[in-house]
Amino acid sequence: MTASTVKAPVCVLGLGLIGGSVLRAAAAAGREAFGYNRSADGVNAAVADGFDATTELETALSRAAQTGALIVIAVPVPALPMLLAPIGRLAPECPLTDVTSVKGAVLEAITTAGLQARFVGGHPMAGTAHSGWPAGHAELFQGAPWVISVDDHVDPQVFSTVLQLILDCGSVAVPARSEEHDAAAAAISHLPHLLAEALAVTAADVPLAFALAAGSFRDGTRVAGTAPDLVRAMCEANWQRLLPALDRAIALLADARDSLSASDSVAELVNHGHAARTRYDNFPRSEIVTVVVGADDWRRELAAAGRAGGVIRSALPTRDSR
Amino acid sequence: MTASTVKAPVCVLGLGLIGGSVLRAAAAAGREAFGYNRSADGVNAAVADGFDATTELETALSRAAQTGALIVIAVPVPALPMLLAPIGRLAPECPLTDVTSVKGAVLEAITTAGLQARFVGGHPMAGTAHSGWPAGHAELFQGAPWVISVDDHVDPQVFSTVLQLILDCGSVAVPARSEEHDAAAAAISHLPHLLAEALAVTAADVPLAFALAAGSFRDGTRVAGTAPDLVRAMCEANWQRLLPALDRAIALLADARDSLSASDSVAELVNHGHAARTRYDNFPRSEIVTVVVGADDWRRELAAAGRAGGVIRSALPTRDSR
Repeated sequence: MTASTVKAPVCVLGLGLIGGSVLRAAAAAGREAFGYNRSADGVNAAVADGFDATTELETALSRAAQTGALIVIAVPVPALPMLLAPIGRLAPECPLTDVTSVKGAVLEAITTAGLQARFVGGHPMAGTAHSGWPAGHAELFQGAPWVISVDDHVDPQVFSTVLQLILDCGSVAVPARSEEHDAAAAAISHLPHLLAEALAVTAADVPLAFALAAGSFRDGTRVAGTAPDLVRAMCEANWQRLLPALDRAIALLADARDSLSASDSVAELVNHGHAARTRYDNFPRSEIVTVVVGADDWRRELAAAGRAGGVIRSALPTRDSR
Repeated sequence: MTASTVKAPVCVLGLGLIGGSVLRAAAAAGREAFGYNRSADGVNAAVADGFDATTELETALSRAAQTGALIVIAVPVPALPMLLAPIGRLAPECPLTDVTSVKGAVLEAITTAGLQARFVGGHPMAGTAHSGWPAGHAELFQGAPWVISVDDHVDPQVFSTVLQLILDCGSVAVPARSEEHDAAAAAISHLPHLLAEALAVTAADVPLAFALAAGSFRDGTRVAGTAPDLVRAMCEANWQRLLPALDRAIALLADARDSLSASDSVAELVNHGHAARTRYDNFPRSEIVTVVVGADDWRRELAAAGRAGGVIRSALPTRDSR
């Protein structure tokens, strides 16, 4: 591991909630950090808060190329394509990551653009119901899981560079293959959004419901406060993985409905749900310390460890540092 | 309003999360408060914490009758019948309320037992995922809505007595008819429980899901941590009101599923869900101050005010106090 790799500057493209928080967290960790945002609003807000930001994509990318910066793509999936050609033209050698909630679709776009050799995808599992630069803060990722891709193409040096950013942001890294990430994200992030929307719509039609709504409704609909465009972007980009999760949830609810109607009982769903939540509460976390990045089979080992609850809390040795 | 009515002692039957918290809150408000619990565990825990509790139902009810206590029924719906005959035998003149999440089924049981003349139902919209005496605390109801029934049979004096307890517990009272309460509770409390259970079960089958689960999954499944017996008791006792809410949610999800499959879009559900949640965030609250309890049409006026977002924050004048 070379010092220049670890301390590469960070160039964040997109200064919304997540990108804006990455910029702040990287700067707070003592790293050179600068950002680009398409709209002047985000840039002005970032500059007013003392950060280094521009609306000029070419300026940001040229600076990234000159300084060997790690480029962090932090735009919604639909906005991705318009960034990739300029990156390929102006900063093709820079290590590249993203913070998007869907990994398969991003990897596909990156591969189509010919940028996969320097790309290691990422996804911080953190957020709020709010969006935009003002909603972000440097502590957003503290203690949160942050997925780092270990797909077959992943380069050890780029992996270590991205891992260092994740750790600098205060997160724990969870290694995962893109398609496994997407199936999991469908179940634990995209499906909850749709359930929250359905709950909000159902209650809105019942007189007195909002007058009485308290904890379980507020929690159950919190993510329905997320901007619709963001919810659509992540659900629709991951529709192939979301469909089976949605089908499963509908089937469980339909079975409970039939049982409630036929015998007044929701025992099966309630007992299974409680058991599943209890398993989640007791899900074992362990620290991954023995894998050497770049050694034989390292990606497969990391994927298996991540699946079993393993997280990375400090830099791993890499083969060329031994 | 007579002083003796306002400061009646409080006799709590059932010292679980809610009943135990009512006992603590009533005592903290300076009222004489004593409790009964069937199991010695709850009683021993309450006594160890310095409260007045017994496993002897007859002892508690005789004391309630002698002191003119307000009796608070705080047991799950299935345990209700075994309390009503002793109440009718030993304390038939005591004002009576409950803190159960289903009002129609309770009112039916109370009416069958011939106790409706002294009964005004209640339901504090507060709780946690934990249960039992140790989970309770005197502050549980602070600022929470607490439904008070304004069904046709409701007596003005008993209403004012129950209202005083609600205010002493730090809650705001929301007047509502039992059947309207139950339809609303199905949408904002019972349905969220079933959605949480379905989400937990769905995610449990997906490798990596628990490893990545963060905010939206944790919030979306929080109430799946509630003891299954309690969830079943409230859902099943309210099954007639829960069915249409569940049907509606399933239909919304099925439509989103079809749209996602056919055109990759979840726009309709997401837009409607966000609009509904926004309406909830902006739901107007007002204070009910002009209704005189016991005046012509007072129950109907209170039901309409509650439906419109009105809450009672301090004692209302009653007809015989004018």
